[in-house]
Amino acid sequence: MKSTLLSRRDLDFLLYEWLRVDELTKRERFAEHSRETFDGVLDLCEQLATRYFAPHNKKSDANEPSFDGETVTVIGEVKEAWDAFAQADLIGMAMGQALGGAQLPTAVAEAGFAWFSAANVSTTGYLMLTMANANLLAKFGTDEQVDAFVKPMLAGRFSGTMALSETQAGSSLADILTRAEPQDDGTYRLFGSKMWISGAEHEMTDNIVNLVLAKIPGGPEGTKGISLFIVPKFLVNADGAIGERNDVVLAGLNHKMGQRGITNTVLNFGEGKFSPAGKPGAVGYLVGEPHRGLVYMFTMMNEARLGVGMGAVSLGYTGYLKSLEYARERPQGRPVMAKDPSAPQIPIIEHADVRRMLLAQKAYVEGGMALLLYCGKLVDLAHSAESDEERDSLGLLLDILTPVGKSWPSQWCLEANNLAIQVHGGYGYTREYDVEQHYRDNRLNPIHEGTHGIQSLDLLGRKVTQRGGASLAALGAAVAETIAAANAAGGQPAELAAQLESAWQRLVGVTTAMFGSGDVEAALANSVAYLEAFGHIVVAWIWLEQLLAVNGRSGDFYDGKRQAAQYFFRYELPKTAPQLDLLESLDRTTLEMRDPWF
Amino acid sequence: MKSTLLSRRDLDFLLYEWLRVDELTKRERFAEHSRETFDGVLDLCEQLATRYFAPHNKKSDANEPSFDGETVTVIGEVKEAWDAFAQADLIGMAMGQALGGAQLPTAVAEAGFAWFSAANVSTTGYLMLTMANANLLAKFGTDEQVDAFVKPMLAGRFSGTMALSETQAGSSLADILTRAEPQDDGTYRLFGSKMWISGAEHEMTDNIVNLVLAKIPGGPEGTKGISLFIVPKFLVNADGAIGERNDVVLAGLNHKMGQRGITNTVLNFGEGKFSPAGKPGAVGYLVGEPHRGLVYMFTMMNEARLGVGMGAVSLGYTGYLKSLEYARERPQGRPVMAKDPSAPQIPIIEHADVRRMLLAQKAYVEGGMALLLYCGKLVDLAHSAESDEERDSLGLLLDILTPVGKSWPSQWCLEANNLAIQVHGGYGYTREYDVEQHYRDNRLNPIHEGTHGIQSLDLLGRKVTQRGGASLAALGAAVAETIAAANAAGGQPAELAAQLESAWQRLVGVTTAMFGSGDVEAALANSVAYLEAFGHIVVAWIWLEQLLAVNGRSGDFYDGKRQAAQYFFRYELPKTAPQLDLLESLDRTTLEMRDPWF
Repeated sequence: MKSTLLSRRDLDFLLYEWLRVDELTKRERFAEHSRETFDGVLDLCEQLATRYFAPHNKKSDANEPSFDGETVTVIGEVKEAWDAFAQADLIGMAMGQALGGAQLPTAVAEAGFAWFSAANVSTTGYLMLTMANANLLAKFGTDEQVDAFVKPMLAGRFSGTMALSETQAGSSLADILTRAEPQDDGTYRLFGSKMWISGAEHEMTDNIVNLVLAKIPGGPEGTKGISLFIVPKFLVNADGAIGERNDVVLAGLNHKMGQRGITNTVLNFGEGKFSPAGKPGAVGYLVGEPHRGLVYMFTMMNEARLGVGMGAVSLGYTGYLKSLEYARERPQGRPVMAKDPSAPQIPIIEHADVRRMLLAQKAYVEGGMALLLYCGKLVDLAHSAESDEERDSLGLLLDILTPVGKSWPSQWCLEANNLAIQVHGGYGYTREYDVEQHYRDNRLNPIHEGTHGIQSLDLLGRKVTQRGGASLAALGAAVAETIAAANAAGGQPAELAAQLESAWQRLVGVTTAMFGSGDVEAALANSVAYLEAFGHIVVAWIWLEQLLAVNGRSGDFYDGKRQAAQYFFRYELPKTAPQLDLLESLDRTTLEMRDPWF
Repeated sequence: MKSTLLSRRDLDFLLYEWLRVDELTKRERFAEHSRETFDGVLDLCEQLATRYFAPHNKKSDANEPSFDGETVTVIGEVKEAWDAFAQADLIGMAMGQALGGAQLPTAVAEAGFAWFSAANVSTTGYLMLTMANANLLAKFGTDEQVDAFVKPMLAGRFSGTMALSETQAGSSLADILTRAEPQDDGTYRLFGSKMWISGAEHEMTDNIVNLVLAKIPGGPEGTKGISLFIVPKFLVNADGAIGERNDVVLAGLNHKMGQRGITNTVLNFGEGKFSPAGKPGAVGYLVGEPHRGLVYMFTMMNEARLGVGMGAVSLGYTGYLKSLEYARERPQGRPVMAKDPSAPQIPIIEHADVRRMLLAQKAYVEGGMALLLYCGKLVDLAHSAESDEERDSLGLLLDILTPVGKSWPSQWCLEANNLAIQVHGGYGYTREYDVEQHYRDNRLNPIHEGTHGIQSLDLLGRKVTQRGGASLAALGAAVAETIAAANAAGGQPAELAAQLESAWQRLVGVTTAMFGSGDVEAALANSVAYLEAFGHIVVAWIWLEQLLAVNGRSGDFYDGKRQAAQYFFRYELPKTAPQLDLLESLDRTTLEMRDPWF
């Protein structure tokens, strides 16, 4: 039976027929791998996700973690899934061999991890945070920190969190109040409170490694005075054994619309419930240098943002496959042109509007998957680059694609889930079916790791203009290359390439006009429209890339790719025209709106 | 303190300054009313909704009705709210005085009822179904049926449901299987099962009056063989006392994503648990004539569809007001042009993108409210028309606006709730705040009472072409009148009128081209794009109408209307251009897509 989590056929097409990730094995970093090891990982991920993650997805939604004032209880299946993942050595799948990781290409690891997100995004959250945490510490931590915290995380004995936000400081991290007071022994004591910390309290692992942003008193104001600390739930003795309880205490759980299976917490540091070594404060260990915390965090944040995008894609993908299955099996109504009431009902997939909803989902989720695997391959090429110049030019492209890779799937794969519900009709609105949960789970993605609005300011206010527009130029060069190849191919690719070229030129023209106006405030006021138009044009490019990889072959799979590409160019890309018109006009409607007028 | 349910200021503007519903009192049907009685009803509705409905909205979401195999338990606050509403004589507020109703104009009753939907759409659902049921029976039932069922419903002693769908027949009612066997005494015995029946089992009222669609054996096939029956939970004796238990039995409850507070049931008829008068089957009483059931139901359905639209508006409206309040109170970040980190944070309403999200919500919910009150006034004018010709021309307009009045708010006021969450950031994603529930509750509206796709086929396949395009022409005449008035007014209204005129002409041109092509299949394939473009153009017209009602006055409220109108014309109306281009091209992408290609 075909999986309704993801399509392995599509992953194989994207990874091998399009991105040719098997060629990465020619590079030293990936030389010990082969197509066989990649396939083995993808097989394993599908199996484990299907066996250990999917079955309790609904159960953990209906039975969210509870807190009795002392202990947080999480249903037992989450721990079983955690163990299965850890025992398969997947926590370190993309990490370096020096640390015991499998050193897989990011693109392959991402595709593997997507199976888990599609199966159970909440349980997978514990793992994703741990992997991100370990990744960051492996990069910026000392050898001792790696031994004490990273290795136990890779082994699955410890889990990790990322503690950035506070009640009064979410999008504006400059305003965090948690303080870290230096101690004579080189450690710090933390005092304060963190909000929205996922995975921060449970009994599944021996320890929980919190990575915490805090300010060392006397440091610079704003984001330049933020440092990063390791603040474990339990101190770790020199021999690696679990030591004293640290003063990191759960103040309460947040109750979310979706992603209910993962704890989401308010954490208090140094409130005095515990006193490690008889002194007040939560013990923290500085990561790297003082005041550089946000820089470290943002290195990781870019990967985390692509991870959010992939989570959104995964949820969109499974919703698509489930609504497709439903549409094939559900009889309802008759062809619009032949309404003989005594004729048998037809499966709803035969109705044009249902096919529209399925094609839209296909275009969104396969487009999003392709975009993120493309970004993953950029990471791999950068990791294994042979020159600084090559690494730099890959970085420029990755920089400008990151806000799109985070926000586009968060918007459109959520819309895919919306359509998946609609295909199911009333059934889709019930918890007896899966898709309403996917929609609820996916709704978080436009919010966390930088909201949709924050992404738009990152794109328009930073990435587009950085280094004199070098990132935009790098993307333009990549798009131009695709257009040239499509023109050479002729036929449908050339037809779509003409549309893409005109959309791209219009985008660049509007961008130039916006900044040329000198009215930066007005230029930035509609940054979300810019992000959305930009994203649709990028994904049109990615669809043209896929079409080129089809390379004229026929058969159901390739015909489907062809039709989805056509859908995207006919139904979706044209939506960018009014957005670009609005941007070009430097409209001031929102700027001129006054608070009392609401 | 200002209400966060609806804006009374806006309702007063729409009802009195724009629609001038007080002038309806010059008509005989409404002659006993005055602005004072209208205001009294609106005051009362706001008070009761605030006091009895809003406080348990979250509680009934978290504690949905439960079924122990015998009895359904609903939290006590629902019954208290029901009683408060009934005791205020509001169940019959729009019904004729002959039945003991208050005979209020529909527009006023709708506005009053919106307070309850905004406060608690689930609890309000029990009332809405009862009112729709009573309305239908008052129109098509016999005097005996009115005495036995309608009067107790108006008094709040009985409640009502609408039982149309079955497991295998939702959008396609032609395929229902429930059968009604005629008995010698003129009654019927029903056998079958109904799905998605809201409000069909609870202990809050003495009896539950189910209106059930069923087929009398030997009747015509398809929708022409459907009859309508009253099938009460308990039979009613000749003296009005509750009699024997009827064989209508709850098979189970559905568990929905939202609107959790109202029972949603699978109901079995004639399964044999009870045997009224010692015979098998559920006793049913035919309403009107055999085989005319769907006609009766659809008379009511049009009002129900506008009711769904108003429910969507109400949820959108309260989400808007709550996110507005949040945006005024929540400090976060600094002005984009002045990033001194030591300056205090500003309320997020100062950020252009937050104002965009608030303006969009304002444009959607005030636009939707205006559209539905306009439709309500059309109903009132038709009810009180002095000639058949007048009634007919009002009916033509109402006919074409009904699918828009149902579907446009279901789409865009849901989007308003989506934006309300986004304004709240992470907080909006938690159940500690209200907006995530509104979003979940509102997601039902594009599905029930005819899905979005069904509305689009109703609009494009029926309403647009009916009577040689007379409905479209009636709407065109109304739009032209507004444009003429706006041109006479000059300034901003004239500017927007030019845009509206061009959009309207394009819509008519595309419509003509679509049907002129002779390719009906292709014309209907993109009916949803048609519905959405049509809806946005209609709401642009409604915004221009509101702008004319502002009539050049200044002050915060009027300035806000002006800015929201401008927002709609600059940000929203242009979205229709690519939709109309697609329609004109008679695109066959979805038609050509093949099942195996997915």
